[in-house]
Amino acid sequence: MLNRFADAHYMAAALALSERGRGQTGANPNVGCVIVKNGIILGRGWTQPGGRPHAEEMALAQAGASAKGADIYVTMEPCAHDSTRGPTCSVSIIAARPRRVIVATLDADERTRRRGIDRLGDAGIPVSVGIREWEARRAMAGFLCRLENSRPFVTLKLAMSLDGCIALADGSSQWITGERARAHAHLERARSDAILVGAGTARTDRPGLDVRLDGLADRSPQPVVLGNDKDRPEHWLQIDEPEAIAGLADINWLLVEGGAKTAASFLQAGLVDRLLLYRAPIIIGGGLPGIADIGLDKLSEAHGQWRRRERRDLGQDMLEIYDRAA
Amino acid sequence: MLNRFADAHYMAAALALSERGRGQTGANPNVGCVIVKNGIILGRGWTQPGGRPHAEEMALAQAGASAKGADIYVTMEPCAHDSTRGPTCSVSIIAARPRRVIVATLDADERTRRRGIDRLGDAGIPVSVGIREWEARRAMAGFLCRLENSRPFVTLKLAMSLDGCIALADGSSQWITGERARAHAHLERARSDAILVGAGTARTDRPGLDVRLDGLADRSPQPVVLGNDKDRPEHWLQIDEPEAIAGLADINWLLVEGGAKTAASFLQAGLVDRLLLYRAPIIIGGGLPGIADIGLDKLSEAHGQWRRRERRDLGQDMLEIYDRAA
Repeated sequence: MLNRFADAHYMAAALALSERGRGQTGANPNVGCVIVKNGIILGRGWTQPGGRPHAEEMALAQAGASAKGADIYVTMEPCAHDSTRGPTCSVSIIAARPRRVIVATLDADERTRRRGIDRLGDAGIPVSVGIREWEARRAMAGFLCRLENSRPFVTLKLAMSLDGCIALADGSSQWITGERARAHAHLERARSDAILVGAGTARTDRPGLDVRLDGLADRSPQPVVLGNDKDRPEHWLQIDEPEAIAGLADINWLLVEGGAKTAASFLQAGLVDRLLLYRAPIIIGGGLPGIADIGLDKLSEAHGQWRRRERRDLGQDMLEIYDRAA
Repeated sequence: MLNRFADAHYMAAALALSERGRGQTGANPNVGCVIVKNGIILGRGWTQPGGRPHAEEMALAQAGASAKGADIYVTMEPCAHDSTRGPTCSVSIIAARPRRVIVATLDADERTRRRGIDRLGDAGIPVSVGIREWEARRAMAGFLCRLENSRPFVTLKLAMSLDGCIALADGSSQWITGERARAHAHLERARSDAILVGAGTARTDRPGLDVRLDGLADRSPQPVVLGNDKDRPEHWLQIDEPEAIAGLADINWLLVEGGAKTAASFLQAGLVDRLLLYRAPIIIGGGLPGIADIGLDKLSEAHGQWRRRERRDLGQDMLEIYDRAA
C-alpha cells in the first residue's frame, strides 16, 4: 500500500494488455503484466496465442536485468506448477529479484491457488493481492468461468432495431447496424475462442463466422453449430444442446450469434453471462424478434438479472453491454 | 451581438421557462420570457394555462418600471395582433421602453410573422432574432407543427424490455420499467394536451390516462381513442384514423401510448415526430412487440429517419428520445 494510486494505474495498464490475448490463449487465462521501476515501464507482456509464453515471461524478457528492484504488476497470480511447455513464472520472478509483486486476483484453480504468491512470499518478495480485482475478473472472465462453472463464458450478441427486431419479417437483416458497429462485432469475434449459431441460422444464412477485419483474419474463432446441420463445413463443431458447451475443450470465450431460438435456449438454460446489444436508430415494425420464448411466467422474475456495464456510440448505433447481475 | 454568450445564456433560461407551459396553452405557443438588466433577472414569464397571460405580459408585470433599459429575452416573436383576451405583447414591450429585445424564433403564423418585430423596430427598439432558434423550435414544436403541418406534434411512447417487448405474451405489462421511468412517463403526460390509445388497448386495459403525480393531477391530458370503443368514458374523444388528429382543436402536443397496432398506424401514416423510448434492463423473450407491421419493404428504407436527441438513465432504466430526422 505504498502508493495505491500508482498501483491502480499500472494494474489498469496490465489489464489493457490482458485484453490482447482474449480468445487466443486456449486453456490458459489471458493475463497481462507490466514491470515498472522509477515510473518507467521496463517490460510489457500478455499471454501469447496458444497460451505460451506467459505474460510474465514476455515482460521479464523485455526488462532483462533491469527487473531487479522493479515492481511487477500481473493480473493473475503467477503460475507455480512446473510444465514442459515453459518456465514457471513464480520461479522466473524470484530469479529476477523484483522489489514487489502486485497481483489483481488469485488463480481460480484450487490446485494451484495461492501457491504462486506463497512461493514469492517464501522467497522474501512482498506481494499485494486484490488491486482492481473486479476489473481483472471481468477481463479474464472466460478462464475464470471455465474453472468455476466448468463451461465457457457465454456472450450473446444481438443487432437490433429500436423496436427489438433483428430482421424484417422475410428474414432480411442486411443491414440493421452501420459499418462501425459491424466492425466492432467482428472485433468481438476476434476476442472469442468459439462462435455459435443455431442450425436454422446456419442452414439459412450459411454465415462465414470469420473475422473480416484487416490483419485479424487469423483470429477467426472456432465455429460451432447448435442442432442438426449436416451440410456444415468440415471444421465446424456441432453440439445438441446448450449444456454441451461444457464439453468444448480449451474454449474460454464463446460468442452466441443467434438466431432467436438459439438465444432463447441459452437464456432459458441460464447459460448467458453477457449481452452484447447493438442497436440501430431504425424502426422495423412487425419484424423478427431477437429472442424467442424463454418460458417467463411473471414480469417480476425478469427483473434484477442484468446490469449494464458499458454503453457507447458506434457511429449512429449504440452498443450496450449487460452482465449477469448475480 | 453585443454579448453572444450572455444572449445564449439568458435565452436558455427563457426556454427552460417555456417548458413549464407545455401541454397547457391551448392554441397558443408555450413561450418563455426573461427580463434582464445589469446581470439581474427582473422578470420571468411563461404562457399561462389556457394561453393567457402571455409570457411577456407575466414577465413585464414582475419587472414593472425597472424594465426600462433592460434586455427582454423571449422564445418567440411577441404578438402584434390585437385581442379581446389581453394586451398585445409588442405594444406592452414598446411601452416598457427596454434597451433591446432578443427573440429565438419568429412566429410561424404567416399572417402575423415579422409583424411583432417590425413594430418593435419601428418604435426604435433594437431586435436580435435567431438566438438558440433550433432549441426554441424543439421547445415549442407543438405549436409550430400545428401551424406548419395543420396537426399536433405527435410523440410515440414505448416502455420496452431490452428485446423490444412491451408485455408478456399473455399481455401482462406491470411492470416493465421501474418507478422513476414511470414517473417520468407521467410527467410527459402532463406536458401533453392530449393522449391517445387504440381501441383495443382502451377496451382491454381501461387505462386511466391521467397524470398520477402529486400536484400535477390537474394537468391530465385530454384522452382520445383511435377506433371504435363504445364503452369509453364520456369525456374521451374518438377518431377513426390517425389523419383525423388534424381535427383535434387546440391540441399542440399529442402523446400516443399504444398499443402496437396504433403505434404502427401512426408510423405508417408518417405522423410520428418523436419517439420516447423507455427501456428496462430485462429480457422477456417471445413477448408482445411494441410496434406492429408498418409495411416496410426494405431495410434501407428504415435508415436515416430518426436521430437521437437525448439519452438519460432513470433508475435502472434508460430513456432515449429520437426526433424525426427530416
